[in-house]
Amino acid sequence: MCSASTFNFLFSLSVCLFSPFVILPFPSGRGVKARAKMGLGERGGWDKSESRYCGVETEFEDDMPRLLSYNLSSSGFDFVVAPLMDPTYRPSLLEAENGSSHVLPFAGSDLVLSPSQWSSHVVGKISTWIDLDSEDEIFRMDSETTLKQEIAWASHLSLQACLLPSPKRASCANYARCVNQILQGLSNMQLWLRIPLLKTDEDSLDVDSDDLVSEVSTLGVGLDFLEFFSTKYAYEERDSWELWNSFRLICEHHSQLSLALDILSTLPSVNSIGRWFGEPVRVAIVHTDSFLTNARGYPCLSKSHQKLITGFFNHSVQMVLSGKPLHNIPAESTGSAANHIDKNVNSVERHPLRSYLDYVGYLYQRMEPLSEQERIELGYRDFLQAPLQPLMDNLEAQTYETFEKDSVKYIQYQRAICKALLDRVPDGKASAITTVLMVVGAGRGPLVRAALQAAEETGRKLKVYAVEKNPNAVVTLHSLVKLEGWENVVTIVSCDMRLWNAPEKADILVSELLGSFGDNELSPECLDGAQRFLKQDGISIPSSYTSFIQPITASKLYNDVKSHKDLVHFETAYVVKLHSVAKLAPSQSIFTFNHPDYSTKKSNQRYKKLHFVIPSDTGSAIVHGFAGYFDATLYKDVHLGIEPSMATPNMFSWFAIFFPLRQPICVQPGSPLEVHFWRCCGSTKVWYEWCVTSPRPSPIHNSSGRSYWVGL
Amino acid sequence: MCSASTFNFLFSLSVCLFSPFVILPFPSGRGVKARAKMGLGERGGWDKSESRYCGVETEFEDDMPRLLSYNLSSSGFDFVVAPLMDPTYRPSLLEAENGSSHVLPFAGSDLVLSPSQWSSHVVGKISTWIDLDSEDEIFRMDSETTLKQEIAWASHLSLQACLLPSPKRASCANYARCVNQILQGLSNMQLWLRIPLLKTDEDSLDVDSDDLVSEVSTLGVGLDFLEFFSTKYAYEERDSWELWNSFRLICEHHSQLSLALDILSTLPSVNSIGRWFGEPVRVAIVHTDSFLTNARGYPCLSKSHQKLITGFFNHSVQMVLSGKPLHNIPAESTGSAANHIDKNVNSVERHPLRSYLDYVGYLYQRMEPLSEQERIELGYRDFLQAPLQPLMDNLEAQTYETFEKDSVKYIQYQRAICKALLDRVPDGKASAITTVLMVVGAGRGPLVRAALQAAEETGRKLKVYAVEKNPNAVVTLHSLVKLEGWENVVTIVSCDMRLWNAPEKADILVSELLGSFGDNELSPECLDGAQRFLKQDGISIPSSYTSFIQPITASKLYNDVKSHKDLVHFETAYVVKLHSVAKLAPSQSIFTFNHPDYSTKKSNQRYKKLHFVIPSDTGSAIVHGFAGYFDATLYKDVHLGIEPSMATPNMFSWFAIFFPLRQPICVQPGSPLEVHFWRCCGSTKVWYEWCVTSPRPSPIHNSSGRSYWVGL
Repeated sequence: MCSASTFNFLFSLSVCLFSPFVILPFPSGRGVKARAKMGLGERGGWDKSESRYCGVETEFEDDMPRLLSYNLSSSGFDFVVAPLMDPTYRPSLLEAENGSSHVLPFAGSDLVLSPSQWSSHVVGKISTWIDLDSEDEIFRMDSETTLKQEIAWASHLSLQACLLPSPKRASCANYARCVNQILQGLSNMQLWLRIPLLKTDEDSLDVDSDDLVSEVSTLGVGLDFLEFFSTKYAYEERDSWELWNSFRLICEHHSQLSLALDILSTLPSVNSIGRWFGEPVRVAIVHTDSFLTNARGYPCLSKSHQKLITGFFNHSVQMVLSGKPLHNIPAESTGSAANHIDKNVNSVERHPLRSYLDYVGYLYQRMEPLSEQERIELGYRDFLQAPLQPLMDNLEAQTYETFEKDSVKYIQYQRAICKALLDRVPDGKASAITTVLMVVGAGRGPLVRAALQAAEETGRKLKVYAVEKNPNAVVTLHSLVKLEGWENVVTIVSCDMRLWNAPEKADILVSELLGSFGDNELSPECLDGAQRFLKQDGISIPSSYTSFIQPITASKLYNDVKSHKDLVHFETAYVVKLHSVAKLAPSQSIFTFNHPDYSTKKSNQRYKKLHFVIPSDTGSAIVHGFAGYFDATLYKDVHLGIEPSMATPNMFSWFAIFFPLRQPICVQPGSPLEVHFWRCCGSTKVWYEWCVTSPRPSPIHNSSGRSYWVGL
Repeated sequence: MCSASTFNFLFSLSVCLFSPFVILPFPSGRGVKARAKMGLGERGGWDKSESRYCGVETEFEDDMPRLLSYNLSSSGFDFVVAPLMDPTYRPSLLEAENGSSHVLPFAGSDLVLSPSQWSSHVVGKISTWIDLDSEDEIFRMDSETTLKQEIAWASHLSLQACLLPSPKRASCANYARCVNQILQGLSNMQLWLRIPLLKTDEDSLDVDSDDLVSEVSTLGVGLDFLEFFSTKYAYEERDSWELWNSFRLICEHHSQLSLALDILSTLPSVNSIGRWFGEPVRVAIVHTDSFLTNARGYPCLSKSHQKLITGFFNHSVQMVLSGKPLHNIPAESTGSAANHIDKNVNSVERHPLRSYLDYVGYLYQRMEPLSEQERIELGYRDFLQAPLQPLMDNLEAQTYETFEKDSVKYIQYQRAICKALLDRVPDGKASAITTVLMVVGAGRGPLVRAALQAAEETGRKLKVYAVEKNPNAVVTLHSLVKLEGWENVVTIVSCDMRLWNAPEKADILVSELLGSFGDNELSPECLDGAQRFLKQDGISIPSSYTSFIQPITASKLYNDVKSHKDLVHFETAYVVKLHSVAKLAPSQSIFTFNHPDYSTKKSNQRYKKLHFVIPSDTGSAIVHGFAGYFDATLYKDVHLGIEPSMATPNMFSWFAIFFPLRQPICVQPGSPLEVHFWRCCGSTKVWYEWCVTSPRPSPIHNSSGRSYWVGL
């Protein structure tokens, strides 16, 4: 009856079928884009990413044109991260000097650069001395005044972003409140909160704390914050992610508050780093002292740093280089060494960080080109869409077209049908027995084709019924049968499988009714109706399917859901190509359905309670919701699915599903996450409810299917 | 300029001055009301409370009219809590017996009682065998079916409430989900979740656990729940409040979900019990085995039980008696003993629980009658109101009328003025010196009167300026001065004190500009304007004031705020007569203002971070927001205020203020609560922002005064 799959990524705007539902537009530019320059170079088939631009952090400089010319034009950087105000400025000193001065002591006017130069090439670096949580009230007021003045100036210049200094202490509520206040009135500018990528592991605590102190101090991070990291606090609290988390919770996940991560020479554990990929990281600031030296004296990065940087590139995170040059590049290095370095630059004019930039460019260009599938899916990353309702609505031709192109899926079906035919009909009886195979939800015929190919491959005789409820698809089906000359083998039935009176019973029932979450397009209910005409010993392909969920950090998705400002969107499951998410624990199975199922007390309602344990080296984490997947057993060992650990490769019919939480839940290390999911069935609809009970109870989501349901 | 105080409780509907603001109506009936009967008897001046009705818990009885006649008509109970369905009923057994039966096996029809009998005299007791979190799926489904059927039947009968059995285990998400689903579709009925009043203290753990088991088992609480209380769990988790808390968080504080507390013979600590007074407790079920025996063989309660029951009476909690009679009342007890017992009842017909009921009635009648002030304030308990905006708006005559009646307040002012006059003018110069006293915000003149009385009392000469911005009040002020013959002493100035050009400077500046939270009606800003015309060594009365906050549990207030379904109401402070709240920790001071203040760097902005520690024997608690108070020093040791530990007695001009939290925050024992409050000043308005940072960060409330502010 209904066509195969869940999700039509080519025609997404036409698939929002239930409820008044606005599909969000593609994410707009997130960072600084250099307009004229090429950035880090070309990467096969993928030069649209913002991560190909690289910036440089600078000191305060009166003469902004000279600063740009020095760092950009001749040196290869795409933008500067530069202070906008003299670092000696203090509002309280100023007033003391000359009574009431409302003129700000800026170095230059806005006229020194063109508007497009300001916005394309300059990120405003907010004065690092500010400390809004200082005990000193005058200093605190000075900090607040300066912060507001600098951001107002940056807004006036139409900068795309400002870099906010790291909080100087663990308790930074006043800083966060002030930033939150600024965010309420900000037009388009992004605020990048600078946070060191830092987490002390329990076992490395004693060994590393001194190193950390020296490392962090090079970043200008305040003493209190250092103390927070280096003394008497429990393991869980020495984690800069927690600092970020409090800050953004106080600012309520504001979409213009994002992250600039300082990359140090020591990296935390992989699990701990993984969390940041679910956060709005816009920039990674790489310090020259994080670089190693290769055999020829050039800067390079450790393997784990390389992996991290590549990961950032894949998530459109821009690089910024920072610090003094620490490598003495041999002047005559024009030989074969370091072939990634641009050799045409006059060594006299070389920017002191040029060799670092070259190395970053080399890492960028070295990346694998995107596959065809990745390129197609690129625009759909982290883009929320409503699941299909194929039972209530008829699919459109373009939707069929897209799904039919997923050859991997039909190859699996064909393999399953082959095995079933061989089991059903021994070789000796191949010419005597005709197997009755019914495709329920035949659409425009791809499973009919797979069945006939399987029959040919195995030499079995087949009689096919193609049952389809969509009259528009049936038209095409008729023409296909005629075109292929299948008239003697295939009978087309234009009917809902739940209502059809079959003239005979089937040996094999083939369907592709699965959604991203397995049963979410009501395959169980459809097949319950269809199994009336399956022989008692008949085979259903698929024979079973199971759904899976997994807790994720997904700031982007959470913010997109939140932007609707209503309950309905928080109680809806979305189909989405997950990309900028952190998967916090392995997925676990939830609901399984087997077909056929002739038991008398059968119910399609389900309830499952799950305990997730987040690996202890992850640290604390925030759960914005749950990623959902499925895996289906078509027949015996032939399976099909999108559960990450066993996903069928190169299949594109399904993206994951996302169940949001109305309030993100923070999970401390060692504290289990207890989650409940229900599949509920009414007379006209099926829906899910979900909630969390540990570490703290959430409300029931989607009670009685009030916000989201699938119609029968 | 502006009149004195915050809150006019007689004319509250006219005081909602800012924003489109709907004042909530008085709470409607919360429980079961017997219409014809007198209940527990009369209490001086306070017979409207629902707590004067007492019910009895019964077994299942086919013949409902007989059940009512036995327990009510002749026995003195007001209602029964009775099972509606045969306890042997199991849907799955029924189906097995006779195929498809959709007829429910109810004992009688709805016709056996009149509709008003059903709704006034019967609370439906849901079958206690149900267990929606059983591992046994059939049993779980039976439980869900039965629960839904029984509540549907109770709704059909228009019962006012049903008693839900205690959760049988600590993890009760499926039970809560099902109840939540029912609540979504329920019209008016209340669901009372039965919870034992039970919390094991750390030190009494080993000693008491057996006792607890035997006690709880008499209540029909399931084994798993017992295990939860008696084995291997940490101290914090052996607390039935946590069970209630998870349940209602999952049901999202639904206003129709309330509590029936089982009172056992052992009571938890006073702090722990205190939490329940912020919860929607509707009924206390007192078991016969909680009673002691007095010297004459009659049932009575321990002192701590008496105190608890009296507390419940004061909070409109109804009593229900439960259990078998355990006291053998001497048949000939007609003597002087137990004079609270009704002696006119024929002992043959006496209900077996009659002596327990008599004792409860005795406790009720023994209570202190309400004071005049309490009676007036009764209707305003837990009733949210918008604070006044006297600076932006002119008060009405009735508002002045109300505040002027608060004689205690003016006596304090008079005392302060006396002391100031004596300090200012030594006895020897009493006739030589005329003190210039200015009342700023004179209203209709009460402070002028207090000043003149103070002058008379101390024999000092006074010249009074009465400055008032409200022209309507000035009219009355003129007539008062004429009536009293004060023309030679009092000069009336119709002007805003911030704009007035005073002809001379004052020795003493008197004002009553304080709100419930001290500075929240902009006393600081007004007095900043007025101190221009105070002599350098002049006195301001008040000379200082400080605000205080305190974390509270306040389900009722939280639900009333939530019912508006918008952000604005969660970011507003309300004036409210706090009653059904639990004060979780002693209040702490926040903002202090001193007058006069001639310092040059003066700012009326404030920021304070507070740490509250909830006493460890309280257990976990939920914080719905913060109660705010003030205390003012009028002059030297004369103070005035509403901070509970030092409140001025018999003063009614101010109720407390309530700052809600958008998401209630659960605090575990031993985990500090860190709270931040800001007083922010703009050019046209003043506002507060607030947030919590520990145990977990909340968003900033009322950023930039977007929801709630006080206009300048």
